[in-house]
Amino acid sequence: MRRVGIVGAGQLGRMLALASYPLGLRCEFLDRSADTPGAQVAPSLVGALEDASLLAELARRSDVLTFDWENISGAALAPLEALTLIRPPPAALEASQDRLHEKALFKRLGIPVAPHTAVESAADLARATDTLGLPGVLKTRRMGYDGKGQYVLRAAADRQRAWSAIGAAGLIYEQFQPFTREVSIVGARDARGAIVSYPLSLNTHAGGILRHGTAPYAHAALERRARAYLARVMRALDYIGVLAIEFFVVGGRLIANEMAPRVHNSGHWTIEGCITSQFENHLRAICDLPLGSTRPLGHTAMINFLGEMPDREALLGIEGLAYHDYGKEPRPGRKLGHCTIVKRTARERDRALQAALRLIRGS
Amino acid sequence: MRRVGIVGAGQLGRMLALASYPLGLRCEFLDRSADTPGAQVAPSLVGALEDASLLAELARRSDVLTFDWENISGAALAPLEALTLIRPPPAALEASQDRLHEKALFKRLGIPVAPHTAVESAADLARATDTLGLPGVLKTRRMGYDGKGQYVLRAAADRQRAWSAIGAAGLIYEQFQPFTREVSIVGARDARGAIVSYPLSLNTHAGGILRHGTAPYAHAALERRARAYLARVMRALDYIGVLAIEFFVVGGRLIANEMAPRVHNSGHWTIEGCITSQFENHLRAICDLPLGSTRPLGHTAMINFLGEMPDREALLGIEGLAYHDYGKEPRPGRKLGHCTIVKRTARERDRALQAALRLIRGS
Repeated sequence: MRRVGIVGAGQLGRMLALASYPLGLRCEFLDRSADTPGAQVAPSLVGALEDASLLAELARRSDVLTFDWENISGAALAPLEALTLIRPPPAALEASQDRLHEKALFKRLGIPVAPHTAVESAADLARATDTLGLPGVLKTRRMGYDGKGQYVLRAAADRQRAWSAIGAAGLIYEQFQPFTREVSIVGARDARGAIVSYPLSLNTHAGGILRHGTAPYAHAALERRARAYLARVMRALDYIGVLAIEFFVVGGRLIANEMAPRVHNSGHWTIEGCITSQFENHLRAICDLPLGSTRPLGHTAMINFLGEMPDREALLGIEGLAYHDYGKEPRPGRKLGHCTIVKRTARERDRALQAALRLIRGS
Repeated sequence: MRRVGIVGAGQLGRMLALASYPLGLRCEFLDRSADTPGAQVAPSLVGALEDASLLAELARRSDVLTFDWENISGAALAPLEALTLIRPPPAALEASQDRLHEKALFKRLGIPVAPHTAVESAADLARATDTLGLPGVLKTRRMGYDGKGQYVLRAAADRQRAWSAIGAAGLIYEQFQPFTREVSIVGARDARGAIVSYPLSLNTHAGGILRHGTAPYAHAALERRARAYLARVMRALDYIGVLAIEFFVVGGRLIANEMAPRVHNSGHWTIEGCITSQFENHLRAICDLPLGSTRPLGHTAMINFLGEMPDREALLGIEGLAYHDYGKEPRPGRKLGHCTIVKRTARERDRALQAALRLIRGS
């Protein structure tokens, strides 16, 4: 397989395309604009992400179709399956598109989730907060990302405010989890069922957006558990490609928060931090190439650039730092790039992370 | 600085362009064909490499001009200096274009070279072999690379054969060096005079072409010496960018063979094998960004793919192996790609290198 079609040409697609060239693959995108992060590094069709004829054109020109943007509908995907391979499989995309279905899958597989219930009306919300208690989080079941479509309720009076903010059919109310840490696992599975996974990363969010993370998060018991959960989900979905699952750590237990059927922000550290990056392993998996080593090369920190780019020269002065510009126009809160620091020890890494954070606004 | 013009769009240019995107730089090439390795990953002007108007166009569109192909003439470069920055400086390109001048520079800087003499005629060649002895190597002073334009003389009878093969004005005869090893040093210097250099690599050539290499070649005394020589050349030329020098190891001494005023095949291992690759450090140097760490991440081997591509799937099955396809049409002896293996120990690396060599013809 040589030709990889990618639906969506954001930074994830861009980093996939950059990883594809050395492997002798050729990526092509479909996205709404001609100046996406992806289109700056590989050819792109321009049009709506669910435009049936453009999707069919991309599928016909590709040996395998994959996704930077996982919210494509089953209806848009169905006719493409006759034209090319769809990886990850449509069922995996669908399972991740609806928080309620996603949680049902986790539960069915014995993976702990926060107590939650569907909310279709203001009355449902009142019942939900009565039953599950406060605080809690009201979320849209579909199309939420980076904290969008979420409202935190701390007291009964917040119910009305929450309903005014995002009230509609298709919500979910989740009991707030008093977590001490957020971790994520990223791994890849190929068509023969081989699975590799990266060391756990420890993530720091603010306002629902990943700010920075460190890896490996050396906690053998949690890592074993996370790997087992990841493998269960992958096998249940007959998954092919990279999959990420985010967890809350609550009283020493892992509570699954959400999954992403694609390369993931919390895996960006693997570009410099591991032998084979998540981007290369996604491509290897979907193109039937052997999966690469996930061995870490040191102690790593990753920091997102949100809203504005930092002083590149100052940041590159930090030893062991790699810089990633996604080629996007600045906009408040927008993910514009990231940097990764690789050091010999966790202590050196933490010191460099602090130095870098001082140079990056919004992190 | 954002816009980097690159004269020549071979694999070196391609790997520079791939390293440029994360840094927020934009590369543009000039080369003879529209389907070069470089033009597959970044825009390219198409025309002769010394076409004055295309060079001027590229210079005007670039904040800095650099080279995949170092044999551009001083006459072609001179008018460009008014239009943009030329890095490395033209004098460095010129010094490396003529083996006789290059050796004169090394000698002037106290860097040992093989005894040699200019050859302009068959009579000169006879005198040269009488004075310097046999065996020896007759080489063209200009435009030689990968063993092209070279003839090894072992006996007096070879003089006529050598002259028939490459006889012309503008040759050099060098005494053959009974070397035990070939090593090279690659480093970068920025406009403020800061210098970084990579660990020595140990190179295995055949037929004048680099077949494979390993790094770091842990020989502290030789490395110290090589670093000192590299710094002397860089300072003498007021060098900016990556420079490579190849040496023969003869009786424990380094004898400079040749230098390349650009990223170099013997530095490809740094993509996976070091914190910052030679490609990124070349870009950092010429764009006035701080130089990156040259710390190695393990024990590394690099193998060139010559003439035909190997079985990608089989090769990727070797743990810790990264694959590099240059997107070139196969042709006998042509460099089409390479792979790099990174391991924890030299022993593991050597075992994986042997396994990879069995899968690669022509290596």
